[in-house]
Amino acid sequence: MIQINGKRLIDDIDRLSGIGLGEEGKRTRTAATDADKAGRDAVCTWMREAGMQITIDRVGNIFGVWDCAPEDHVDTAPLMLGSHIDTVINAGKYDGCLGVLAGIEVVRTMQENGITPDRPIVVAAFTNEEGVRYAPDMLGSLVFAGGMSADEALAVRGIDNTVLGEELARIGYAGKPCDLLTPCAFIELHIEQGPILYRENIRIGAVEDLQGIAWYEITVTGHQNHAGTTPTHMRCDAGLAAAKINIFLRKHCEMAGSRTVATVGTCSFEPNAVNVIPGKAIFTVDLRNPDEACLQAEEQALTDYLKELEQTDQVRITARRVSRFEPVVFDQGIVEKIESAARSRGLSCRRMTSGAGQDAQNLATICPTAMIFVPSVGGISHDPEEYTRDQDIINGANILLDIAVDITTRR
Amino acid sequence: MIQINGKRLIDDIDRLSGIGLGEEGKRTRTAATDADKAGRDAVCTWMREAGMQITIDRVGNIFGVWDCAPEDHVDTAPLMLGSHIDTVINAGKYDGCLGVLAGIEVVRTMQENGITPDRPIVVAAFTNEEGVRYAPDMLGSLVFAGGMSADEALAVRGIDNTVLGEELARIGYAGKPCDLLTPCAFIELHIEQGPILYRENIRIGAVEDLQGIAWYEITVTGHQNHAGTTPTHMRCDAGLAAAKINIFLRKHCEMAGSRTVATVGTCSFEPNAVNVIPGKAIFTVDLRNPDEACLQAEEQALTDYLKELEQTDQVRITARRVSRFEPVVFDQGIVEKIESAARSRGLSCRRMTSGAGQDAQNLATICPTAMIFVPSVGGISHDPEEYTRDQDIINGANILLDIAVDITTRR
Repeated sequence: MIQINGKRLIDDIDRLSGIGLGEEGKRTRTAATDADKAGRDAVCTWMREAGMQITIDRVGNIFGVWDCAPEDHVDTAPLMLGSHIDTVINAGKYDGCLGVLAGIEVVRTMQENGITPDRPIVVAAFTNEEGVRYAPDMLGSLVFAGGMSADEALAVRGIDNTVLGEELARIGYAGKPCDLLTPCAFIELHIEQGPILYRENIRIGAVEDLQGIAWYEITVTGHQNHAGTTPTHMRCDAGLAAAKINIFLRKHCEMAGSRTVATVGTCSFEPNAVNVIPGKAIFTVDLRNPDEACLQAEEQALTDYLKELEQTDQVRITARRVSRFEPVVFDQGIVEKIESAARSRGLSCRRMTSGAGQDAQNLATICPTAMIFVPSVGGISHDPEEYTRDQDIINGANILLDIAVDITTRR
Repeated sequence: MIQINGKRLIDDIDRLSGIGLGEEGKRTRTAATDADKAGRDAVCTWMREAGMQITIDRVGNIFGVWDCAPEDHVDTAPLMLGSHIDTVINAGKYDGCLGVLAGIEVVRTMQENGITPDRPIVVAAFTNEEGVRYAPDMLGSLVFAGGMSADEALAVRGIDNTVLGEELARIGYAGKPCDLLTPCAFIELHIEQGPILYRENIRIGAVEDLQGIAWYEITVTGHQNHAGTTPTHMRCDAGLAAAKINIFLRKHCEMAGSRTVATVGTCSFEPNAVNVIPGKAIFTVDLRNPDEACLQAEEQALTDYLKELEQTDQVRITARRVSRFEPVVFDQGIVEKIESAARSRGLSCRRMTSGAGQDAQNLATICPTAMIFVPSVGGISHDPEEYTRDQDIINGANILLDIAVDITTRR
């Protein structure tokens, strides 16, 4: 059974993680910044060293193409592996980077073991997955999958008032219209970014679907009033109504069989004074479920509860849906390949849902797609404490290798 | 039955309310500002026109002394009427001002009706009742009642980094050690600032006590985590625990017979991001009850609940008590006089609790004290919409007159 070179992959991760360390050693490579350019340059160098041709598309997606028989492969759909290398602010080492660097390592390993794929293998590093600097997140893969035009994407203005297209040109990563064929499949290796594999002590996650997401901004308007002089039964406390909504959501998530998760992540009161009953409470709700019908039912239940609360608590409530993604179901065949590969290598494996958004969800709209998860220690991500054990990195990359070999040598 | 001059009193309120109108017509006369000086000057002029001698003490409290027989009254404790004329930011017309201006009007009315009091009548306007610029609130009356030294008060630094003593000197209201005798009684006419009289359509409130207050700043620490990847049963959501505390407090207030009011007036989450489970929730609790034992029991119940929540929700909670005032019980004899006077004038009257802090609570520590409340339309206060109908103003001032006549002509 062939193996990737674990030390080489870990070294690559460490080298890339050293790029973009700013003040106080905080790692930040948000999209199309100088730090992102430095990371891209390193990745392109390693791709070239692995014999790959670099293609940059208009939104700066990097494609490293390994094609050992270009003449034979005309009109042959490539296998695509990959993820992203842009980061959040004060990020960890693994999120995204693992999928890209493991892709390169898979190509090297196949070459070193004399395995000749029957189609090109492309390693992709998609632009602006995190969405910290430019909205939406997963922008590069969205454009690649045809969900947004390149022109529209390039015109996006960032939180720092920069324009994505100008910044890509500035760092030398504004490329040309992509001439790649639609992949025959896309496989993304990623850290779980959640606690399930770690807590259950399972080595490999075969990701079969990805949660749908609904984001709401909710404003409750009550009556601002004196905290001392207003009797309890005469209060219309916007903050209290907000608290009830938070608890309602949790109760719904705790119902038997529910696969919903709900989060009230932001909250502010007005006027926000110790001795004034809040006249306004503004907060967000993040609702997720891997099943579209279930997610819709949760949204309806929330809407119904808000109406009920308007009556019982004499408040006005407006709920604005600010974001909505449908759940994604990944390719059953690839998921089974992941399970089978894990079994062959003696690695425990479970099917699971991706709680986070991923480039894979965009690729899934154009080709058979799935993801491989490896455990995040303590479930921590988007944090310098983000950590995945070396052996889990190596296990994940080996599974990625197995699938790549399987798909590109089956004819 | 003698009557105050309603038109004259309403005119005084209107004239004083015109002082301190800043940009956009917002009324602001915070303590020891130029606007406060202008308000003080007007009040002193009206006191002098009513034949009163002005005394300013070291912390700027204004005392207008009407003593029609100074030789006879040596060593005779005066009757004190009054309140304050400093305001919050963007204030209404009535809060505080009513008690001072009605006191002057009572003196005028007694003079015009040839009533000779058997002791001096002093009308007081206490410094910095609102506490917006300098802490603590009710500072002037606190110093007058001996609860704080004048030196300490004068050294207080305001939110604008000014020093109270310097500002009082600058506006010409730094006076001399007070040589007034301890009053035989203190009566404060005030708008209710709450909705009870207005909702119950009652004309006069005989205020028999004043709520004790406990303020807490509570910090809940959970685990900051990804909103999508963290299963419900693995969450330690600080915001959810905060919501539970808010609801616990409301349930306690709604228990049969409870006289407690509780308010969560401020709230903030960290990191406060839509897709991150809050790792921290910081909020305030304002707890009030007119009975000290009950207030202590509420504080204990809250403390017990926080301990319980630490177990059930796996969070850490710290509660810092940032302010505490014991309840005040006013003088039963004066409360009865208010009820009796209302009855004589055919005005509906109920006993009630002051939900807000008042200068009267400090005076209550040195002499028999009570308050008269008149209805606030809609319960609104500390707002330009603050409004009390002219007839209610006149009613309240007439009751103040009746008590003043009763107390100063009974021998």
